[in-house]
Amino acid sequence: MVFAAKKFINNPNDVVTEFIEGLVETYHGLQYLDGFPEVKVVIRADVSAEKYDKVAVISGGGSGHEPAHAGYVGEGMLTAAICGDVFASPPVDSILAGIRAVTGTEGCLLIVKNYTGDRLNFGLAAEQAKSEGYKVETVIVGEDCALPPPRGIAGRRGLAGTVLVHKVAGAAAEAGLSLEKVAAEAKCASEMVGTMGVALSVCTLPGQVTSDRLGEEKMELGLGIHGEPGAAVVDVQPVDVVVSHVLQQILNPETNYVPITRGNRVVLMVNGLGGTPLMELMIAAGKAVPKLQLEFGLAVDRVYTGFFMTSLDMAGFSISIMKADQSILDRLDAPTKAPNWPVGTDGNRPPAKTHVPVPPSRSIAESHNRPQELSKEGRILEAAIQAAATVIISLKDSLNEWDAKVGDGDCGSTMYRGATAILEDMKNYPLNDAAETVNEIGSSIKRAMGGTSGIIYHLLCKAAYAELKANAHSEVTAKHWCEALKSSITSVSKYGGATAGYRTMLDALIPASQVLEEKLSAGEDPISAFILSAEAATAGAESTIQMQAQAGRSSYVSAEIIATVPDPGAMAAAGWYCAAARAVKEQYQSSS
Amino acid sequence: MVFAAKKFINNPNDVVTEFIEGLVETYHGLQYLDGFPEVKVVIRADVSAEKYDKVAVISGGGSGHEPAHAGYVGEGMLTAAICGDVFASPPVDSILAGIRAVTGTEGCLLIVKNYTGDRLNFGLAAEQAKSEGYKVETVIVGEDCALPPPRGIAGRRGLAGTVLVHKVAGAAAEAGLSLEKVAAEAKCASEMVGTMGVALSVCTLPGQVTSDRLGEEKMELGLGIHGEPGAAVVDVQPVDVVVSHVLQQILNPETNYVPITRGNRVVLMVNGLGGTPLMELMIAAGKAVPKLQLEFGLAVDRVYTGFFMTSLDMAGFSISIMKADQSILDRLDAPTKAPNWPVGTDGNRPPAKTHVPVPPSRSIAESHNRPQELSKEGRILEAAIQAAATVIISLKDSLNEWDAKVGDGDCGSTMYRGATAILEDMKNYPLNDAAETVNEIGSSIKRAMGGTSGIIYHLLCKAAYAELKANAHSEVTAKHWCEALKSSITSVSKYGGATAGYRTMLDALIPASQVLEEKLSAGEDPISAFILSAEAATAGAESTIQMQAQAGRSSYVSAEIIATVPDPGAMAAAGWYCAAARAVKEQYQSSS
Repeated sequence: MVFAAKKFINNPNDVVTEFIEGLVETYHGLQYLDGFPEVKVVIRADVSAEKYDKVAVISGGGSGHEPAHAGYVGEGMLTAAICGDVFASPPVDSILAGIRAVTGTEGCLLIVKNYTGDRLNFGLAAEQAKSEGYKVETVIVGEDCALPPPRGIAGRRGLAGTVLVHKVAGAAAEAGLSLEKVAAEAKCASEMVGTMGVALSVCTLPGQVTSDRLGEEKMELGLGIHGEPGAAVVDVQPVDVVVSHVLQQILNPETNYVPITRGNRVVLMVNGLGGTPLMELMIAAGKAVPKLQLEFGLAVDRVYTGFFMTSLDMAGFSISIMKADQSILDRLDAPTKAPNWPVGTDGNRPPAKTHVPVPPSRSIAESHNRPQELSKEGRILEAAIQAAATVIISLKDSLNEWDAKVGDGDCGSTMYRGATAILEDMKNYPLNDAAETVNEIGSSIKRAMGGTSGIIYHLLCKAAYAELKANAHSEVTAKHWCEALKSSITSVSKYGGATAGYRTMLDALIPASQVLEEKLSAGEDPISAFILSAEAATAGAESTIQMQAQAGRSSYVSAEIIATVPDPGAMAAAGWYCAAARAVKEQYQSSS
Repeated sequence: MVFAAKKFINNPNDVVTEFIEGLVETYHGLQYLDGFPEVKVVIRADVSAEKYDKVAVISGGGSGHEPAHAGYVGEGMLTAAICGDVFASPPVDSILAGIRAVTGTEGCLLIVKNYTGDRLNFGLAAEQAKSEGYKVETVIVGEDCALPPPRGIAGRRGLAGTVLVHKVAGAAAEAGLSLEKVAAEAKCASEMVGTMGVALSVCTLPGQVTSDRLGEEKMELGLGIHGEPGAAVVDVQPVDVVVSHVLQQILNPETNYVPITRGNRVVLMVNGLGGTPLMELMIAAGKAVPKLQLEFGLAVDRVYTGFFMTSLDMAGFSISIMKADQSILDRLDAPTKAPNWPVGTDGNRPPAKTHVPVPPSRSIAESHNRPQELSKEGRILEAAIQAAATVIISLKDSLNEWDAKVGDGDCGSTMYRGATAILEDMKNYPLNDAAETVNEIGSSIKRAMGGTSGIIYHLLCKAAYAELKANAHSEVTAKHWCEALKSSITSVSKYGGATAGYRTMLDALIPASQVLEEKLSAGEDPISAFILSAEAATAGAESTIQMQAQAGRSSYVSAEIIATVPDPGAMAAAGWYCAAARAVKEQYQSSS
């Protein structure tokens, strides 16, 4: 069975009318003429023919090229856009309605893309308007460089370069020039620009079936904006190669399509045809600029990259090159309220592509080493770290086994990598400085652990370090460790998104932290407080077996499976916390 | 054989780097930090940490969402954007480099989309930056309304609504507010917005194979921006229905995702996901606004339609609704130099959707009738028209036959329709007024003929009418007819795009016009001049057999076939011209 191509539309016959309705909802400066569905004309809300004392600039043509042409209506660009049905020239009466709606004493310029239907309909409207007493000039734009010149006038289609002509003419009109001068500038601009398109897919008309005449590995060079076949079908190439080909075709001295020679200044337009995302257009633009500079000896003064004249959903882009002297640049840079003319592209840029050196850290990285002699606290810290890492290594298989049921089965291996790295690096830890040692543990973890749990443990160390560094200046007390643990939990909870009861490592650490704080506040001796808090960590970790996951990968696993195992992350946290607490107790007892 | 999806890229691993290069070529106000390919950070060219005295607003995340986030860097919006690889959170060191590059004494706000990787990497960078002495605040945005709340924090992804938070925060920072206040405004904005997406196709990662998990008639509701499966797969619906569903989901009072109730003011964002053209987005926006107004009782103060946060080449869109009081509208309306924030959307609009009545013609349409009594000129004109139309009717089959070889075979039928209409309408022609009669002939042609040749003949009549009307006031002389013919030729040539030798009707009319002018200038009597010019028309038409087509459909036909027949359009023109000339001669002779 054959289906119409999927599109976000209603009745295929209403797409242009409904597009215009959405357009005027979006842009407050635009209005449309009554007379739907026959008359589809978008005009500047601030212009009326009776009072308008500048040259009106009018363009239009078939629809399906959005934002062209209605998106260029606005002060400084088009005064009105006449929209035909999809890929169909607008009828004479609509063009006339548009002319009458915005043309004042200074007359109007019609900018028409070089298609027979557009030329004739706009031409007829122009003749009718003249017979009604309007001053009308017409400029026809045909800047396609894809077909060799002998094909005659029919071969030079009006493409995205027309938008540059709109801008030049609109700025000239806004500057108060006469109709003759606005028309002359538009004509001159139209002779300075060349365009060529390439596509990976053809476009599909609303309500019709998608054609894939290109298949999975072909692309089309020099195509039109209505799905007309291109000049050639070739294998898909890297965009670098495609851009080179297109530039050579446009700037070919044999066809002499555009009067551009080495040393000239140019502007570049990379125009998406509808289905190609901005990322790819930017890649093409980034390749085109140095090629124009280095291979063709041109100064690229402006680059316009985006969607200017599309072809429904066609995957492809066109490149336009326009010869630009200062007067053209001034017209292109002139301010406009047209919603779809790009912003941030005007003005001169620094001569070379600019980038900024990566700024250094404000904290001078001190190199830390193991002290010649360990203090008592240093020895205790060393024993605690060693015990914590060792128990994690011993838990590897159990953690992996639990994780295989509720996660991706690598919790034990990931923790093992971190623990091993810590044991390796520990010989260089500045163990007499607890804060810096915690920071170094974070570095070992960062280097070796990877994965989300690597980041979480790094974050935990970083927060504890910041807390210890800021508050524990001379001696690090149990109270300081308690504050460091709280700070770590806050940080992991904030950035990791979990809190108590989410079936994570926090279900071990939060009870531990609470008990530690409670016992210390109650005046318990620090060693007992640590041991009691370690027991709370283990109880908390084991209680995760009854919890439904709320964060992380386990949140996608069924409740039945979850209920058979504790959270491996919580068990790991309880494991190292208990081992550390016991080691601290042993060290204290043996040294006292 | 399986092919990677066609894309305009080079090495799939370089897409983000090359995108950034194109971006800074396009927008002169942006720069990037050195350190490619690891460090991918875009910053405002006019900001350096040493001198910046406002709060820096920093965002970022995985790439593939262009123009997010780098396209929002600019005065009044983001100060820096940190770009990860495609769909991958940026590494901590890149985020840190960005913070260091733009953060001055007032500190920085990190705006982070609610994905675990982003939260953790930005969080770690924030902690590191704090330990280096920077003031840092973080706001996490998760405004997805697709999944029911019990899924927990993991279910509320950060989507296109994040761009509205960027704008609010950027404007607040630009206004000189403190870090605490900027963060508070951003947090408040993030709680006011809800988003839901729909898609017709999933996205394809660079270098990978396209998946079509949806098939030809399904769409996905409530999907993420990384190709994550949506909440439901359903049959494709008209966009009207899709929009209704999405709005209901976002504004569902049961989930209470956004605190929006009847009578509230809101802003609407319709965001394209990459592969859906602007036309369709505008259609969705045009449908969403009246629904919000009428079905939900909301005032829609701003509409943003375009590409804000894409998902590579995904065909789809998302809708975001944000509750907006005046202070939020002021932030959204505040000027910005960020290239991809939309223009022309600010300020209050007239209360109702505005459209403009179609303006009437300046020339009051007089109703023309056949005069009670024909003048001598009227009788001659009548005879000429009758003869011309009659010969065209007799030529129908020959013209079709010739046209079948070089065109689409309907030249005779089309001309026949015009001639028949003229004979029908002639009883009402104001024959004593040559100019108006020519205009009426044009109207008959317009009514009946159709096709390109219908427009061309209408144009021909319109130009002759304008010439006669302007210059032949009392009596229409042969000289006037000669000028009218010349004006017609000029007009047809200009808008039709052909000239002598292009194998068109002009190859009959141009020689006729030249001979007529020559003979009249030489003092020849008008009747002989007409007859001689008619002979030139026939000779010209017959000579087209030797011509290669340059315009129109025949330009696509091979030279061999062309050489067997004359151009049917030229033969038709010679036919009516000769018949008219002979009729004029006969009338003169019989009446003298």
